Amino acid sequence: MSEDHSKAVRIGLLGRGTVGAAFEELIDRRAAAVEAATGRRPRISGVLTRAGGDFEQIVDDSDLIVELIGGTDPAREYVLGALRRGRPVVTANKQLLAQHGEELFEAAREAGVQLRFEAAVAGVIPIVRVIQESFGVTEIDKVFGIVNGTTNFILSEMAASGAPYEEVLARAQDLGYAEADPGDDINGADAAAKMAILARLAFHTPVTLSDVPHEGIEQISSDDLAYAKELGLSLKLLGVAERRQGGISVRVFPCFLYGGHPLAPVEGPFNAVMVEAPEITEVTMSGPGAGGMETASAVLGDVVSILGGEAPVHEARERLPLVGDVASSFYLHLAVADRPGVLAQIAQVLGDKGVSVKSVVQQGAGDDARLVMVVHECLESRFAEALEAIDALDVLRAPARAIRVIEEEFV
Amino acid sequence: MSEDHSKAVRIGLLGRGTVGAAFEELIDRRAAAVEAATGRRPRISGVLTRAGGDFEQIVDDSDLIVELIGGTDPAREYVLGALRRGRPVVTANKQLLAQHGEELFEAAREAGVQLRFEAAVAGVIPIVRVIQESFGVTEIDKVFGIVNGTTNFILSEMAASGAPYEEVLARAQDLGYAEADPGDDINGADAAAKMAILARLAFHTPVTLSDVPHEGIEQISSDDLAYAKELGLSLKLLGVAERRQGGISVRVFPCFLYGGHPLAPVEGPFNAVMVEAPEITEVTMSGPGAGGMETASAVLGDVVSILGGEAPVHEARERLPLVGDVASSFYLHLAVADRPGVLAQIAQVLGDKGVSVKSVVQQGAGDDARLVMVVHECLESRFAEALEAIDALDVLRAPARAIRVIEEEFV
Repeated sequence: MSEDHSKAVRIGLLGRGTVGAAFEELIDRRAAAVEAATGRRPRISGVLTRAGGDFEQIVDDSDLIVELIGGTDPAREYVLGALRRGRPVVTANKQLLAQHGEELFEAAREAGVQLRFEAAVAGVIPIVRVIQESFGVTEIDKVFGIVNGTTNFILSEMAASGAPYEEVLARAQDLGYAEADPGDDINGADAAAKMAILARLAFHTPVTLSDVPHEGIEQISSDDLAYAKELGLSLKLLGVAERRQGGISVRVFPCFLYGGHPLAPVEGPFNAVMVEAPEITEVTMSGPGAGGMETASAVLGDVVSILGGEAPVHEARERLPLVGDVASSFYLHLAVADRPGVLAQIAQVLGDKGVSVKSVVQQGAGDDARLVMVVHECLESRFAEALEAIDALDVLRAPARAIRVIEEEFV
Repeated sequence: MSEDHSKAVRIGLLGRGTVGAAFEELIDRRAAAVEAATGRRPRISGVLTRAGGDFEQIVDDSDLIVELIGGTDPAREYVLGALRRGRPVVTANKQLLAQHGEELFEAAREAGVQLRFEAAVAGVIPIVRVIQESFGVTEIDKVFGIVNGTTNFILSEMAASGAPYEEVLARAQDLGYAEADPGDDINGADAAAKMAILARLAFHTPVTLSDVPHEGIEQISSDDLAYAKELGLSLKLLGVAERRQGGISVRVFPCFLYGGHPLAPVEGPFNAVMVEAPEITEVTMSGPGAGGMETASAVLGDVVSILGGEAPVHEARERLPLVGDVASSFYLHLAVADRPGVLAQIAQVLGDKGVSVKSVVQQGAGDDARLVMVVHECLESRFAEALEAIDALDVLRAPARAIRVIEEEFV
């Protein structure tokens, strides 16, 4: 990029979908503010769309590339190509970063240019900047939160209305909060990509999408949400990246939160992320999870940072092992035969496996008899064994349903 | 500062109170991480305390100055002196920035060095960086929140326990959440200084402490909190900086929030700040409001940013007028004579002044009869006139009590 700060800055735009169009509008609207802040006036110098545009020509004519195509192919080739030709890149592409992050960071370091990607994670919440810059030398213990607005909208609506999953999904699609093919949102893969990126930044260790086991919300029933309400719990699809036993664990799963939890009140298509470290205690950030203009605004923030400063350091300085088996607390829902001794049988199985019961409530009677239990934190492998043993008991009328729980920690 | 990045970075520390001591400890603990991130290893090259140290010598021996003395004198002279001698400065000093910000920014610009102050506002919440960098070219409408942990702790405790103000203040002092002389926390001046800084950053216009009218919580009674609870409201000391009628309004006042408000669940010695703009909708950030290590951690984040990058732009690019009279909604508590026609009399006075009643509830009877009202948004000057007229009525047994209210906006 030219060092002549009196010049305009020419932006090559790859992709003109919802976010790309909003970004074009925003550049128009904010050109004077960018010039006031950085001394350089931005303009779009070329656009690559499916309909037209030549990538090499666009790079020739630009000082900086904004990639808003999405997906890994051909975005990967374009971003690598631009970096190698010395162009700083801003991208909103979570899949690309989660799957090819190290390769891209390496290319940026070699070329001595910046690669920024605030818009790839948690919408308008500036979590990438905060983790990289404010907490760049803080030993972070845990980053976790709600990083998919579609599923949070669906879970909030199911809880509020009691309506079943399919009906609420259709409503989300009508409102534009879910795509026609919501697969990656619903099954947790979108959240997993974001958590891979956040874990990489928080722990300075390589993490890719394939390191992140994920569960989605397809199996959640309105029953689960009704019980949750009764117990004062709310159900969220959580992404969790944390240090455990000398390594790290990065996962996505539906989870009950107690009412006092800072993430419990986050409703609708919002995202929220918490960062925990001994030196900072905790910081929580929340805001809308998506939206064309919100995402474009995050992209523009990155553009301004590139015009104003140096590159953040992206090199992984740790090689932390991924811990496969971690301890969790669970909610357990058992449809059981309504006869004496059933609870004793189940308690026996749990006790044998070393799983300790925190609370148990019997609900319904006869053909509707159910036990709703919360068990204390235990290794998930151990809990899975207990679950298998319970499922083998003839007192169960249906397979056991288990969902993780985060309990109130304090006060 | 030397451009030789292979060298250590020598930090001159001014002040070694709680935060200064924590910062020294943190530099020790994080020196390797800072070196990994920036290529330069930090060490404390000199400390100025009341007991000793020579300022000029410390500047001679340092690449960067960290000012943790607090107050405006002699901190102002030291910070100006360091900047003019080409040393970047990190400070946690809100009074200094709120009262002499433009002078300091000017000195930093002239010397071409950075002045950073994340720790001056909202404890560990990186609100300064987020407003300056992530939303640096966003047209922000409003920045508001809870920026004083002492008063939030006191209000939370009063609401939870029903205990009177004096008792809860003593408890806060025992726990270290309030100082022996809590004057500036309690009367809103501390929050006002922080809001002056945030308003300056959000609106790019000069704002100083004297531009910020502030009310504190000394007048809050446990009665107010009891009513609030009944009505599902929570009481917070709010700082608000917003665009109004072509200018800006920056104020601090106690305020009732409806249960669904994102700031309502913020309890105890926590801070929370919201940023609103059309392009980002809203972002909320919360975390502990103080603590030696938390503040030191924010200071270290600034040190790392100085080592890694260029100076943010501090020049005011607007000169926005301060709007004196703004519209607010109010809660009104009237101890009244228990006889027919009282409500009619009061409603008449309000109506004459153009103040419209949203809800009214009569509580108690006889010598305990009270009217609790919420009025719709109206110009504060007009409401003050109405209040004066009501206070002149002979049906009042005590002066009227009024507290602002923010109503739920949506859903």
